[in-house]
Amino acid sequence: MEETLEFAEQVHAGKPQLPLALRLIQNTGVLTRHVVQPLEETLRHPGFEERNRVYEVESKKLCPEVVEQALANAGITAQDVDAVIYVSCTGFLMPSLTAWLINTMGFRSDTRQIPIAQLGCAAGGAAINRAHDFCTAYPGSNVLIVSCEFCSLCYQPGDDGVGSLLSDGLFGDAVAAAVVRGSGGTGVALERNASYLIPNTEEWISYAVRATGFHFQLDRRVPGTMEPLAPVLRELALSHGWDIGKLDFYIIHAGGPRILDDLSKFLDVDYQAFRHSRATLAEYGNIASAVVLDALRRLFDEGMPTPGASGVIAGFGPGITAEMAVGSWTGAPPRNGARIPHDGSASYLERDFARTTTRGIAWTA
Amino acid sequence: MEETLEFAEQVHAGKPQLPLALRLIQNTGVLTRHVVQPLEETLRHPGFEERNRVYEVESKKLCPEVVEQALANAGITAQDVDAVIYVSCTGFLMPSLTAWLINTMGFRSDTRQIPIAQLGCAAGGAAINRAHDFCTAYPGSNVLIVSCEFCSLCYQPGDDGVGSLLSDGLFGDAVAAAVVRGSGGTGVALERNASYLIPNTEEWISYAVRATGFHFQLDRRVPGTMEPLAPVLRELALSHGWDIGKLDFYIIHAGGPRILDDLSKFLDVDYQAFRHSRATLAEYGNIASAVVLDALRRLFDEGMPTPGASGVIAGFGPGITAEMAVGSWTGAPPRNGARIPHDGSASYLERDFARTTTRGIAWTA
Repeated sequence: MEETLEFAEQVHAGKPQLPLALRLIQNTGVLTRHVVQPLEETLRHPGFEERNRVYEVESKKLCPEVVEQALANAGITAQDVDAVIYVSCTGFLMPSLTAWLINTMGFRSDTRQIPIAQLGCAAGGAAINRAHDFCTAYPGSNVLIVSCEFCSLCYQPGDDGVGSLLSDGLFGDAVAAAVVRGSGGTGVALERNASYLIPNTEEWISYAVRATGFHFQLDRRVPGTMEPLAPVLRELALSHGWDIGKLDFYIIHAGGPRILDDLSKFLDVDYQAFRHSRATLAEYGNIASAVVLDALRRLFDEGMPTPGASGVIAGFGPGITAEMAVGSWTGAPPRNGARIPHDGSASYLERDFARTTTRGIAWTA
Repeated sequence: MEETLEFAEQVHAGKPQLPLALRLIQNTGVLTRHVVQPLEETLRHPGFEERNRVYEVESKKLCPEVVEQALANAGITAQDVDAVIYVSCTGFLMPSLTAWLINTMGFRSDTRQIPIAQLGCAAGGAAINRAHDFCTAYPGSNVLIVSCEFCSLCYQPGDDGVGSLLSDGLFGDAVAAAVVRGSGGTGVALERNASYLIPNTEEWISYAVRATGFHFQLDRRVPGTMEPLAPVLRELALSHGWDIGKLDFYIIHAGGPRILDDLSKFLDVDYQAFRHSRATLAEYGNIASAVVLDALRRLFDEGMPTPGASGVIAGFGPGITAEMAVGSWTGAPPRNGARIPHDGSASYLERDFARTTTRGIAWTA
């Protein structure tokens, strides 16, 4: 945060937005972030082509190790993977990185590729839900989720609206991977999922696509969206026979501090209930589709809930779209050495690359 | 074709590539194409931002009617749709057009959004296969597929490599929609699907992403890819107990004339077997992910196969990826008024917009 404030002082020096920019950065609650390039590089705009080239180079550099760890944690090999869901909204490759991953990491040639670029921060939840669907359609299959978000490559020096000033202080870079297994192991047994689009909010979070690349546009009404989304989450839990305010774990997209504060208020849960998401936000910033994967990793880190514990996973992003899932903890914590064979398996990993948040988790449907 | 040749004469006048360009255009077999803008506009490059703006305006103008017709053909309403798969590689919107469609066309707020931008021409097959998977996971659900491809918005005046010269004469614009129903109706009962990535060909079909937008890059080895893909299609049919050379219908991506000629040779099928794809190519050009939907529409138009007739659907695109499905014709032709309630339903529509190929079909899982 100190560095960000320092750079903001320089970038906005003598401009009327300076005090606002500093206040917005301080209010994000983001203490540390990782970025793929040194800050000096990040603040320059070398053009869309060069940025997309950096995206390609860095994604190829950072994804493989995270993927390997996710596979190892899930106790499977690349040959056991039936589908790869790759979510990323901060660079654009065609073919998607899925093709390169399959070619270089030993995945089968018949692996399904499901690249999603247009669900933004909601894509982490969407990936979990589509993996769940896939395992429901093909019991016993395994789906690898890879989230690769280099938000810093969408920094636009010329944008100085409130939404841009806010996002400059909020977003971080991250790579995360997870395995959803159709059977076996320890983790969250995904039991039900749902999507929800808040009517007529499609322009509240959007990209302007320009010669300079993707320009993130954030409407000032976005932080208020937890009020309409809370009843939807409540309804999902209820349809599963659960009370949303009394679950054992909450893995919530850390869009910003107000998102978390508001939602915990509307769901009538303790401040501590969202501690994993709050930790992700403070340590990494809003890492887009990787937030829910990282928050879930922290749940593993913490020592894991009791088998049967109930929880919710929710990603929010452009649309405005919510991608939500409810499920129960399955299997025993690995520290006692026991594994309950069941439809769910996971372990966790924790790893930092030099300048990038890189986390992998693995769990199961 | 005459217009394209005329413009090519002007564009490449006095340049060494002129004879090659003319020959490539003549060899495409593309007699007519639709483009969203007048040819004069198409050949200008007003910048990536403006092109993407045209993409947004035209997609919002052209998609709704096609979607409505697909829903009507399937005998369902927007409220019956559980998921929308939107495939398009020729413009980039975030949020995806799915959000706008849901907001403006009466889809439910809990409709799943599955936007796919990075599978190119293979995305039509991928959409069918993911819709099939979704209906397998949630029996009785309905999935709307929308394919929106304005390839002309990726025309790059400065690119004059062989691959670019070829694609300038090959690609057309189209919008197509289809419904995959989990139960009921008439159409192709999707029974099995598969994906295949030809190893180490990820650079053969790709986009260079630049300030000027997406630059389509085509390797000269691409037309030769049917040799490795034919055995994969044969194997898929065999796993279903079928002989790939003796199916009743073939819905094949019309990537170009050689793709169709080669594949029919390698699969040992009659020239006529791919008549629907050949008609799509001749009348519309390679319309990317919309090809398989349009070729399938022609199968309906022709009078439909006998119930129980076996067939294959295959899309090919970057990766190089093949997305393949096998299934049987289900239900009776609508002209005799009978409907066999079964797990499959479809009818067809045919409609042209002024300057755009716009087709919708509907069929079922």
